[in-house]
Amino acid sequence: MNEYIDKLKSLNLANYGHDFLLTWDKSSAELEATLYLAELLRERHRLGRSNLVFNSGLAVSIFRDKSTRTRFSFASAANALGLAVSDMDEEKSQVSHGETVRETANMISFMTRVIGIRDDLYLGEGHTYMQEVSDAVQSGFEEGVLHNRPGLVNLQCDIDHPTQSMSDLAMLKNYFGSLEALRGKKIAMSWAYSPSYGKPLSVPQGIIGLLTRYGMDVTLAHPEGYSLIPDVVDLAGKQAQAAGGSFKLVNNMAEAFKGADIVYPKSWAPYSVMEERTSLLKQSDRSGLLALEQACLSNNAKFTDWECTEEKLKLTKDGKALYLHCLPADITDVSCEQGEVSKSVFERYRHYTYLEASYKPFIIAAMMFLTSVKNPLSALEKLAKSYEV
Amino acid sequence: MNEYIDKLKSLNLANYGHDFLLTWDKSSAELEATLYLAELLRERHRLGRSNLVFNSGLAVSIFRDKSTRTRFSFASAANALGLAVSDMDEEKSQVSHGETVRETANMISFMTRVIGIRDDLYLGEGHTYMQEVSDAVQSGFEEGVLHNRPGLVNLQCDIDHPTQSMSDLAMLKNYFGSLEALRGKKIAMSWAYSPSYGKPLSVPQGIIGLLTRYGMDVTLAHPEGYSLIPDVVDLAGKQAQAAGGSFKLVNNMAEAFKGADIVYPKSWAPYSVMEERTSLLKQSDRSGLLALEQACLSNNAKFTDWECTEEKLKLTKDGKALYLHCLPADITDVSCEQGEVSKSVFERYRHYTYLEASYKPFIIAAMMFLTSVKNPLSALEKLAKSYEV
Amino acid sequence: MNEYIDKLKSLNLANYGHDFLLTWDKSSAELEATLYLAELLRERHRLGRSNLVFNSGLAVSIFRDKSTRTRFSFASAANALGLAVSDMDEEKSQVSHGETVRETANMISFMTRVIGIRDDLYLGEGHTYMQEVSDAVQSGFEEGVLHNRPGLVNLQCDIDHPTQSMSDLAMLKNYFGSLEALRGKKIAMSWAYSPSYGKPLSVPQGIIGLLTRYGMDVTLAHPEGYSLIPDVVDLAGKQAQAAGGSFKLVNNMAEAFKGADIVYPKSWAPYSVMEERTSLLKQSDRSGLLALEQACLSNNAKFTDWECTEEKLKLTKDGKALYLHCLPADITDVSCEQGEVSKSVFERYRHYTYLEASYKPFIIAAMMFLTSVKNPLSALEKLAKSYEV
Repeated sequence: MNEYIDKLKSLNLANYGHDFLLTWDKSSAELEATLYLAELLRERHRLGRSNLVFNSGLAVSIFRDKSTRTRFSFASAANALGLAVSDMDEEKSQVSHGETVRETANMISFMTRVIGIRDDLYLGEGHTYMQEVSDAVQSGFEEGVLHNRPGLVNLQCDIDHPTQSMSDLAMLKNYFGSLEALRGKKIAMSWAYSPSYGKPLSVPQGIIGLLTRYGMDVTLAHPEGYSLIPDVVDLAGKQAQAAGGSFKLVNNMAEAFKGADIVYPKSWAPYSVMEERTSLLKQSDRSGLLALEQACLSNNAKFTDWECTEEKLKLTKDGKALYLHCLPADITDVSCEQGEVSKSVFERYRHYTYLEASYKPFIIAAMMFLTSVKNPLSALEKLAKSYEV
Repeated sequence: MNEYIDKLKSLNLANYGHDFLLTWDKSSAELEATLYLAELLRERHRLGRSNLVFNSGLAVSIFRDKSTRTRFSFASAANALGLAVSDMDEEKSQVSHGETVRETANMISFMTRVIGIRDDLYLGEGHTYMQEVSDAVQSGFEEGVLHNRPGLVNLQCDIDHPTQSMSDLAMLKNYFGSLEALRGKKIAMSWAYSPSYGKPLSVPQGIIGLLTRYGMDVTLAHPEGYSLIPDVVDLAGKQAQAAGGSFKLVNNMAEAFKGADIVYPKSWAPYSVMEERTSLLKQSDRSGLLALEQACLSNNAKFTDWECTEEKLKLTKDGKALYLHCLPADITDVSCEQGEVSKSVFERYRHYTYLEASYKPFIIAAMMFLTSVKNPLSALEKLAKSYEV
Repeated sequence: MNEYIDKLKSLNLANYGHDFLLTWDKSSAELEATLYLAELLRERHRLGRSNLVFNSGLAVSIFRDKSTRTRFSFASAANALGLAVSDMDEEKSQVSHGETVRETANMISFMTRVIGIRDDLYLGEGHTYMQEVSDAVQSGFEEGVLHNRPGLVNLQCDIDHPTQSMSDLAMLKNYFGSLEALRGKKIAMSWAYSPSYGKPLSVPQGIIGLLTRYGMDVTLAHPEGYSLIPDVVDLAGKQAQAAGGSFKLVNNMAEAFKGADIVYPKSWAPYSVMEERTSLLKQSDRSGLLALEQACLSNNAKFTDWECTEEKLKLTKDGKALYLHCLPADITDVSCEQGEVSKSVFERYRHYTYLEASYKPFIIAAMMFLTSVKNPLSALEKLAKSYEV
């Protein structure tokens, strides 16, 4: 405990800011603080010690997409710190009645300490919406309408999925022993075949946007046409160079897997399809959307061999790369006829994917803590004295 | 703090009762107690001090209409006092299975300390329903089925909207400096044009039913045919007379605005339309309802000049009347083509409408506290000793 | 308090296990511990004393059927012990995306202390599903994915409804003075007419599966063809014999009522119909389902005289048997034209049915406590020292 606190003291917690929207907006020290605090909260939880730092207050969640694990991770994190979850269910609200984002954001925040938002369905929208909410609560706080500036945590947007990528990083840190041990490790972030359509880009973008900062050799693999948002790909390249690692793009899953220490095979929709889809949705062009889905699914079908099989895994470092997935995976012969990963591979790594997921509530709790608690270090010192079960 | 407690000691908290349904059922001392306690809880919240008075217990909400700010205000208030919100979602329940109100009210109350109900859609129903719930939990308590008599808070019915009108009163008290300062102030509670239909009458009724008790000059303005429930209008007249203020009714927005210190332009459906609508709804007469909506909208359209514009505001006291609204407002060129208020007026007063809304969670918390805590004064004294952040 | 604790010390709490799925999987000592703890928690609640044993943690509810009282009982119990309810709403989750039960169960459990499941719609499914969840969280705990093994509470399955039957037992214990006093008492668990269709079998099965263990004379009555799951009926017979009571089956309500100390008239669908219904549902055979419903309703209509009337009650012990019902009842002339019970009988016993229901939150709290708290006795001793209101 004291070791963790000393580590956290050495990092710049005071300037952490009230938002966690994109990992690349955060300094390395801030990311490290998030990781160390998540581990500390996790260890305290394991020992049955209290992580309560708020005596009351709301954690508001806004989910614009279905969710199981992020919803429960958010609820768990809020509860662990002492906040009550209040879900902003847009169907039950008057949001449609011409309220502006600015107004709603303030109206739900009078006693709110944290807002978590998942808005990943439309390119160009999720992150923009989160920024609007951030601006709204910031000015509400400055104008004295809100007593506290609620922290804002991105639970997945169109650009990044920081609670996922940071959980993945926590998993890798513990699997390989330290952040330093990640230097030089090769990860294959690869597209994989799925019979479904329209999966967001934020997981692969989050991975290449985060892991390139740790000196890793990051390979992004996808069929031609399945590219990500160009700005994020550019950023990944620049970060890799700055960190002394590498970033490259290939159009072949097997090639990406060669010698990899970690593989992350996961489906997504092509950037251009997501753009077209967003525009058709805005026009409510139903037949256009249907045609797009058909075209996309039949294009996907050309790449059914982008599956993470035992054979492909043999290409990795000693045939033993760590398999990662944000779950739920499309598992061949389990959840679909043909999918992202073969049943035997998934089963063999099931334990690791569950462990990977287990970091998320603690990562979210750490983000809530650092964006919302007024003096994180003194709150931590107070916690350290608490042995309550 | 001590000043507030002394003030509250001087008011008659012991007879406050377990229900807050209509402001006109409450004595002036009880209303003052609610206001002062709300301010005290607000100030403590601003300073980061705990308002926890329950160590556990449920606050059950029953929303029969969509809601954003009341829902979050209720959740915030419950949480601040230490209660967990449990929403009685009638779709997920067996209410339709022939349960009586009496039965359901008891079944949800075994560990419930507060029930909040919003039921504002049908004339003649909301308040009646709340009274049934009140009777049910009262007899459940008396018969030993319930260990506590849950407090009942009206979150908006067909007749009154006390959490709104009391928040408005708190806003006015703080804007003008004291309740005494309201004496002689002129408020124009005016109908305003909206492109929508069927808005409840409870806000204007709540305003004239409350503010006429404070010696204010209250003018109710609406086009001919847009009258409110006659009993409430009568009551407003009598209260104004008793309090040494005035109450008058005009059919002209501009006339109402002349010399006003406060304007409250807000749309509602005519009483007679709401009555007809309720009767058609009971008969499930779909074509009748559609015809009524059309007739009502086209009648509304005759009164599009009932908009709160900069020009009309110039008619008010020094051209600077305070603009109030319960939100969300129909803002011309923002949420609709033509609405209740012009964009520039709304923008200029936005801060005040947000502040107005910010009182609501604390007003609700004060109502919960006074209707549900067994010995409010000793609970307050216990709180006063708590400096916990 | 000390008396209760001494009693609980004498029972074998350490081997209680983490699941409460079927009462007949629990030893008599475990059932007694549940009852005594429920009473202790209830008495503490009545006195306004804290029952908080967790400082944080989630209680996850999974409702696959509509529910009012069980939902609120679960929420109340969780809150009383210090847990926050998080509802696993399958529509808002990604459960449909090919997740396995094993995966979902772990994903929602990282900070979860209790899982409550209601899954009573399909024969052969509810209990099986609960066992899968149990296995999943057990292995997640053993493999270090979960820090705690969440307790699992059956909130009604296709076979048993233990939170109901245990509440009924608590009611009987208090009505007759002790568990010992139940020996030789006659209960008529009888089918009753209802205009609805497809009611689960778990209430009558739960009653005969539990009360036959207390030396009672249990008579199960239903029209021919309305039988229960044969295994449960067999079990009831064996248990009655072992406990020195009796169990018999008759096809006549009046006969069952003769001399009864307690009557429990309640509708259910025939076992064979539920089996056919489950199979038609799996085939999505809509016309088959409609035909089955029609056939079943018209068969029901042959037995409209299976109503608990004043006349039938006169047949019971001194004409004063205790009337039990799990609520909501189908009450003739109240919730339907003709139903399970006459209005005057129901009204006369209303108080008792409400009391019967009032045990449920405490029974659930006791089950949560015993399945989830690490050292129940020391937690109880800690509670005993707490006089906090």
